[in-house]
Amino acid sequence: MAGITRFGVSIDSQLIKKFDALIERKGYTSRSEAIRDMIRDSLVEQEWEFDDRETVGTITIVYNHHTRELERVLTDMQHRSFHHIVSTLHVHLDAHNCLEVLVVKGKSREIKKIADRLIGARGVKHGKLTMTTTGKELS
Amino acid sequence: MAGITRFGVSIDSQLIKKFDALIERKGYTSRSEAIRDMIRDSLVEQEWEFDDRETVGTITIVYNHHTRELERVLTDMQHRSFHHIVSTLHVHLDAHNCLEVLVVKGKSREIKKIADRLIGARGVKHGKLTMTTTGKELS
Amino acid sequence: MAGITRFGVSIDSQLIKKFDALIERKGYTSRSEAIRDMIRDSLVEQEWEFDDRETVGTITIVYNHHTRELERVLTDMQHRSFHHIVSTLHVHLDAHNCLEVLVVKGKSREIKKIADRLIGARGVKHGKLTMTTTGKELS
Amino acid sequence: MAGITRFGVSIDSQLIKKFDALIERKGYTSRSEAIRDMIRDSLVEQEWEFDDRETVGTITIVYNHHTRELERVLTDMQHRSFHHIVSTLHVHLDAHNCLEVLVVKGKSREIKKIADRLIGARGVKHGKLTMTTTGKELS
Repeated sequence: MAGITRFGVSIDSQLIKKFDALIERKGYTSRSEAIRDMIRDSLVEQEWEFDDRETVGTITIVYNHHTRELERVLTDMQHRSFHHIVSTLHVHLDAHNCLEVLVVKGKSREIKKIADRLIGARGVKHGKLTMTTTGKELS
Repeated sequence: MAGITRFGVSIDSQLIKKFDALIERKGYTSRSEAIRDMIRDSLVEQEWEFDDRETVGTITIVYNHHTRELERVLTDMQHRSFHHIVSTLHVHLDAHNCLEVLVVKGKSREIKKIADRLIGARGVKHGKLTMTTTGKELS
Repeated sequence: MAGITRFGVSIDSQLIKKFDALIERKGYTSRSEAIRDMIRDSLVEQEWEFDDRETVGTITIVYNHHTRELERVLTDMQHRSFHHIVSTLHVHLDAHNCLEVLVVKGKSREIKKIADRLIGARGVKHGKLTMTTTGKELS
Repeated sequence: MAGITRFGVSIDSQLIKKFDALIERKGYTSRSEAIRDMIRDSLVEQEWEFDDRETVGTITIVYNHHTRELERVLTDMQHRSFHHIVSTLHVHLDAHNCLEVLVVKGKSREIKKIADRLIGARGVKHGKLTMTTTGKELS
């Protein structure tokens, strides 16, 4: 089990005052927590720069559910990449529009490829890949 | 019902050749579809610049489920903002790590605020807001 | 004159080890300096969310200098917005391509507008607005 | 010499209406120009995904010019990487703050490394790498 390290940061008083105001607005209860978040953020960002690191992403797409073709692509994709797609969430936004979130696990290169295919599928109005993490490397 | 408009784009032949290669790799089956996607993308991006436009976002967080405090924040948040939070998806990544996706509907300002609170909560290792759309404005 | 504040950050030992490796690769000589940079970054990002805060941006455009029209737009723009455009740098990339950087000072809203006009001008192959700061607020 | 290709895009009438409004606000005089810009943008983005493609970036840093150390790093860096640094622009923002833009040519990997070193240097308040292009590949 890893221990806890404590280190000091010296900083201009006015700068930290502005930072305190910013993180309070964001709902942080301590500077340590805000700084740990920034540190983890920089590590996740770096994780995605390597092509073959095991990681996690979520793919969000908004589409018109009357588009038959897309349903087929989605189903096909989920079968071909089923070992990557961990779970999906489907939301009916209104009578025509659906939102689907896919949680995808794999090498960053593979996740990007699945995202490209889905976002590029006919009928998808908007799509985005969100790069996150398995959490394993981030204690 | 809206009709279909057809317009012409003139472009340097070498430029379109490179673009064709790029979109083929991304899985597009036609230039029109790739261009419509870029157009919708620019409109969604603009949508989020207005504070009080009704829109949709997904908030992805990865956290250690042993963190009691977070569960409370999440539950509390989902009760206080229940009219914004449309749906949530929970995934057990491993024995310790969970991923949760929240689909949130509301004014962009409000969605950003909910995202800040969740991402800033103690125990959240990584969090991201993905700005998408209701799809209504994007035919 | 502002003083220096010193505060402690407690963090998981493995997490800080990974962060140390990351910042070493980036050339940082101390954790404090890396963390101050992340803090300033978050403040600059916030600065640009307000429409009427005085700030600084650089606009980078790459264009074909044979395009007569662009020269006129550039000259015209620099006269109309001369009180915003602090300085410009021109580089001949090759026999055909030029790169121009404009340093622009003003309200974020105004800088964005100037950037849009320049990036949208006929002949500009690629353009980007870089959001930075007057430095005044960042000690 | 490359010729001009003309192709048709079919699109929902309401969608193109909204896009027309957006690009008018950005100062575009034709749809073709706006679409060519989006196409070039996607190509430049792709260019930077390859580590060893020759490209161009601008590095913008804001710093306090009283910081002796930085001047030395900057001078040193510009000598060691002089074959990469094409040109620099220096602006005195006020009595204390300077902005410097460096135009850097080389492989994307090398440009990123130079940017990391400069942005991480003690005394730099804010720094950003802007990824642009030689323009050669974008007719």
